[in-house]
Amino acid sequence: MRIALGIEYDGSAYCGWQHQDHCDAVQTHVEAALSFVADHPIEVVCAGRTDTGVHALNQVVHFDTTAERPLRAWVEGVNTRLPDAIRIHWVKPVAEDFDARFSAVARRYRYVIHNVPTRSALLRQRVTWVREPLDAAAMDKAAQALVGEQDFSSFRAAGCQARHPMREVQRVHVHRQGNMVLVDIQANAFLHHMVRNIVGSLLKVGQGERPVEWIAELLAAKDRTQAAETAPAAGLYFVTAVYPPALGIAEREPDCVVWRCA
Amino acid sequence: MRIALGIEYDGSAYCGWQHQDHCDAVQTHVEAALSFVADHPIEVVCAGRTDTGVHALNQVVHFDTTAERPLRAWVEGVNTRLPDAIRIHWVKPVAEDFDARFSAVARRYRYVIHNVPTRSALLRQRVTWVREPLDAAAMDKAAQALVGEQDFSSFRAAGCQARHPMREVQRVHVHRQGNMVLVDIQANAFLHHMVRNIVGSLLKVGQGERPVEWIAELLAAKDRTQAAETAPAAGLYFVTAVYPPALGIAEREPDCVVWRCA
Repeated sequence: MRIALGIEYDGSAYCGWQHQDHCDAVQTHVEAALSFVADHPIEVVCAGRTDTGVHALNQVVHFDTTAERPLRAWVEGVNTRLPDAIRIHWVKPVAEDFDARFSAVARRYRYVIHNVPTRSALLRQRVTWVREPLDAAAMDKAAQALVGEQDFSSFRAAGCQARHPMREVQRVHVHRQGNMVLVDIQANAFLHHMVRNIVGSLLKVGQGERPVEWIAELLAAKDRTQAAETAPAAGLYFVTAVYPPALGIAEREPDCVVWRCA
Repeated sequence: MRIALGIEYDGSAYCGWQHQDHCDAVQTHVEAALSFVADHPIEVVCAGRTDTGVHALNQVVHFDTTAERPLRAWVEGVNTRLPDAIRIHWVKPVAEDFDARFSAVARRYRYVIHNVPTRSALLRQRVTWVREPLDAAAMDKAAQALVGEQDFSSFRAAGCQARHPMREVQRVHVHRQGNMVLVDIQANAFLHHMVRNIVGSLLKVGQGERPVEWIAELLAAKDRTQAAETAPAAGLYFVTAVYPPALGIAEREPDCVVWRCA
């Protein structure tokens, strides 16, 4: 039996999604909790691996099990075996040919920039702090150059293991909500560090250090060394994976907005 | 010279505001950082002491110093000596007779309840999780009985050291923002655990276990044993202290604290 789960996690507590030998990864905890509930070893496949410090609101995974459990056990039972920084939110039985990674037609990320004079204590490890006032409208205009199927070599990490640098950005939107500047981006898939590299360069536009046209120029250059530095991990959220509607996979999108107290 | 500061902190990292010998208090860190910048020992007086796990958005303190420093040093210089979970947001020179505690005419608290089926990973230690759907309108109606100068013995912790149980609640408002239920309350001052004890009983009304009239009955009973249990610390925020406008003390409320994940 194949089962899909939706998982939220606080990336600041872990060295990313993927299991590694000498650090604490989200996948390790999820597999240990599922294996306990199933009473046999379980391996999971995720929709989008995240780096150290990157959060997820609706990471989707699938796994196979021979254990017969009430569906709620895969949420409530597993949650009792997980650290507080990782939570299962939904469970759904899926067809044998469903694959959390390969069935996904798109991924959505949100990057959150707190644009205030002094860094927040309560939002540390949840946002990236930028002191200089950002022109979100200019960032949004610049970002539209990213839309379409293009070569993203300029925004690809040196160690990226993807076979080629072509990705299709389907939608990108930069807007301000009070003191927050939010970068929402959806693509069929992403190269390693692609969102953080794009945001790093968009910040230069937002700070007026580079013109709006610069993002298009960077794309055309296909040269990582011309783009800005990688933006910090703390502001990045894997929002959700998107599947063909016929599969009925929840996009239950923790519509994460910042709660304002003023 | 007397100086006032506005401080934000993540209470989950500390055993409350007040310095104690065998645990890690916010006051201890603030005084150490100020003393370093001033180059002489500094003691601070705060507007409202908070318990373990309770957060503050605009805690106001004052202190006296003989050190002559550019004003920004009391923000930026001090912040470099503070843990990330504590931030100074503003500084203001004040008159010799200003007192962060006694000059305050009111305090505001907000209590944040995340009302969803499964607990959030990213909001842990920032909100109180309640699974059962809450009737925020009923809670708001019930809470109006608290307004006015009254005897709050029913909502006073056993160890409360206040001289008497009379407090004036000036405003209370319960409302829903998506999956968050927010309890905003302003009083001239608060008894120990007063907000959390009030919220504990309001939750019973919100869950339909008690009628709207129950809060008025509890007040009239003047008996702590009749009220519900104390609500958890994690959902509680000291929002700000309020001073006479003529003093010009910033109520600048650090604008955002938690994420709302639908």
